[in-house]
Amino acid sequence: MLRAEGKAVHQCDSGWVPVFVDQEQSISLMSVGFLLERPDEAVVWRGPKKNALIKQFVSDVAWGQLDYLVVDTPPGTSDEHMAAVDALRPYSPLGALVITTPQAVSVGDVRRELTFCKKTGLRVIGVVENMSGFVCPHCNECTNIFSRGGGEELARHAGVPFLGSVPLDPELTRSLEEGRDFIQEFPQSPAFPVLAAIAQKILNETPVQLS
Amino acid sequence: MLRAEGKAVHQCDSGWVPVFVDQEQSISLMSVGFLLERPDEAVVWRGPKKNALIKQFVSDVAWGQLDYLVVDTPPGTSDEHMAAVDALRPYSPLGALVITTPQAVSVGDVRRELTFCKKTGLRVIGVVENMSGFVCPHCNECTNIFSRGGGEELARHAGVPFLGSVPLDPELTRSLEEGRDFIQEFPQSPAFPVLAAIAQKILNETPVQLS
Repeated sequence: MLRAEGKAVHQCDSGWVPVFVDQEQSISLMSVGFLLERPDEAVVWRGPKKNALIKQFVSDVAWGQLDYLVVDTPPGTSDEHMAAVDALRPYSPLGALVITTPQAVSVGDVRRELTFCKKTGLRVIGVVENMSGFVCPHCNECTNIFSRGGGEELARHAGVPFLGSVPLDPELTRSLEEGRDFIQEFPQSPAFPVLAAIAQKILNETPVQLS
Repeated sequence: MLRAEGKAVHQCDSGWVPVFVDQEQSISLMSVGFLLERPDEAVVWRGPKKNALIKQFVSDVAWGQLDYLVVDTPPGTSDEHMAAVDALRPYSPLGALVITTPQAVSVGDVRRELTFCKKTGLRVIGVVENMSGFVCPHCNECTNIFSRGGGEELARHAGVPFLGSVPLDPELTRSLEEGRDFIQEFPQSPAFPVLAAIAQKILNETPVQLS
């Protein structure tokens, strides 16, 4: 998605140097993918090994001065989530952005993730509903392929902010498939205004000292 | 999906009695969900605890005579997958049915799952591409929301059978949302013929002694 496949992580005195994904070096990235010898290699790791690496990704990477550190976790509430929360606790994380799709099966899983946040004392920045309706580019009619409204109902029920519904968007997929800059090249796409509004809400309530 | 929420697992002399989801008792089900006190409870378990439960789900449940045992795993190649493969090895499992969505990011993950199958000696029954195109019910035009063809290419590249492309289907979602019988009630839906053909392919090449 970020055209970073095949890039290498180097060592410096202060740790691993993350991979920079843009010319301006405004976004840096760390992934287990960079540490594999072959890209097809399966990461067949049990919990303790994963936990140790997540800890290292927080403490042993020369991140430098950051405005935001975004940790993208798998679904569920297991080793990865506990390890990330434990490793980040000393840095007072802003909180969890919780993503669901609209249908009941997904909302049920995400409800348990909200319980996890509560248990571990992690603030919930808000809930986002993804894959929320599809507007046909041929006839402009909307179909709620995966039902609709589950995310908003979940947020209300849990008493946390609802940040928006991101529609299914073939242009967003295309941007990710081709590693293109969504913000620059797809401002007319259906998902763009929703994603921009969600980002703005998060920025508004989590002011950072821009360096 | 199976209207089994809230049902209870009982103990008998030969182990846990699984939950039957239909009147004919032709489908029985076991899930960690049945063991929780409250449905919202987060399953905050580290690897070893998950591994132990997966082992118990194979050995300590009174499954009786089964034609097929289907194990639905999360994405990835971690504790759950290793535990399931280890627990099932004595029973010579038929193999893994590997599901991907069409886009490159998903295919990349699933390629690593195929590597995992190879490493662990688990046969691959085949690859299925899910969320593969959407035919608008209003105008009948098809949009490949998540790109298309990644699953078939992956299967060819890995030298394993490709079993079919399941389209995005609001009627399938509705059936699952409302706990309705997809086979009886939705034979006209777009996903139905594809799912039936995939099931038939699996049945053909994995004949069981029907009891």
